[in-house]
Amino acid sequence: MTTPAQRVKSVAVPDTKLHWEDFERGAVAVYGPRLVTREEIVAFAAEFDPQPMHLDEAAGAATLLGGLAASGWHSCSLLMRMICDGFVLNSTSMGAPGIDEVKWLKPLRPGTNVRVRATVLDVRESRSRPELGLVKFHFEMLDDAGAILTALATTLMFGRRSPGARS
Amino acid sequence: MTTPAQRVKSVAVPDTKLHWEDFERGAVAVYGPRLVTREEIVAFAAEFDPQPMHLDEAAGAATLLGGLAASGWHSCSLLMRMICDGFVLNSTSMGAPGIDEVKWLKPLRPGTNVRVRATVLDVRESRSRPELGLVKFHFEMLDDAGAILTALATTLMFGRRSPGARS
Repeated sequence: MTTPAQRVKSVAVPDTKLHWEDFERGAVAVYGPRLVTREEIVAFAAEFDPQPMHLDEAAGAATLLGGLAASGWHSCSLLMRMICDGFVLNSTSMGAPGIDEVKWLKPLRPGTNVRVRATVLDVRESRSRPELGLVKFHFEMLDDAGAILTALATTLMFGRRSPGARS
Repeated sequence: MTTPAQRVKSVAVPDTKLHWEDFERGAVAVYGPRLVTREEIVAFAAEFDPQPMHLDEAAGAATLLGGLAASGWHSCSLLMRMICDGFVLNSTSMGAPGIDEVKWLKPLRPGTNVRVRATVLDVRESRSRPELGLVKFHFEMLDDAGAILTALATTLMFGRRSPGARS
């Protein structure tokens, strides 16, 4: 019988991919820019979050958002795509068990060029899975002026070059 | 000069819409079912989270997910759509400032009929905005067997029938 670790290790992973050992506490990287268009904001909202403030300028203007703005879930999904392209797809990432917290601080407007800033908050071994290591990140989506629109913290699991000890 | 509250109140809101006063601590509602297809899982992943385990069965089988599964952000977005159809679009909701926590407990597989269970955890006034009230929810996405796939807690802001006192 194989453990998940053995199954994973049986797949050849290029050593050039980012492993757990390659992440360092305090490291910061910025990805993007990516232009967010009105069309994609409305398309996402129509499918997943059809509240008026995500579909229509006039409706948005009558709300706390003060105008058309992207669904918060759209912001999170765009952030995910930007970190995928930025480093996740070139890593041994095995995903995340969840998100610690999401803050939607400012509206994401059509025509914004967004960037994502990734900060490594913590790096630690996995107690239950010695073949994995954990990296806690703080991700921030920034607008053209550097204001933080969305912030979230999550812990990603990465494959290790050298498995640790099972505790 | 108008405050956001005055601007919002100037828009006619049908009294049949759910207002803050209509939510009661401990109330539970279930929405759905909704069939989640392989096609939509792959389409979402291709756009927002193109990690192999969200795109391809064989790649998924080699990971902790043990097979093709939806992006966690797709699960959240589907949950949002289901609560929009369930009650949010028929309410005075003004959105949420963020999410307290998201837990991706089990993979969302193609062919699953999902439901969303909404539980009201807390109902309170807004101190800073007397025209609004706050409702804290626990939302759970359930599979056909009732297992919890995704759980998240968030606080939605709703318009009130009778504004409270500004503190």
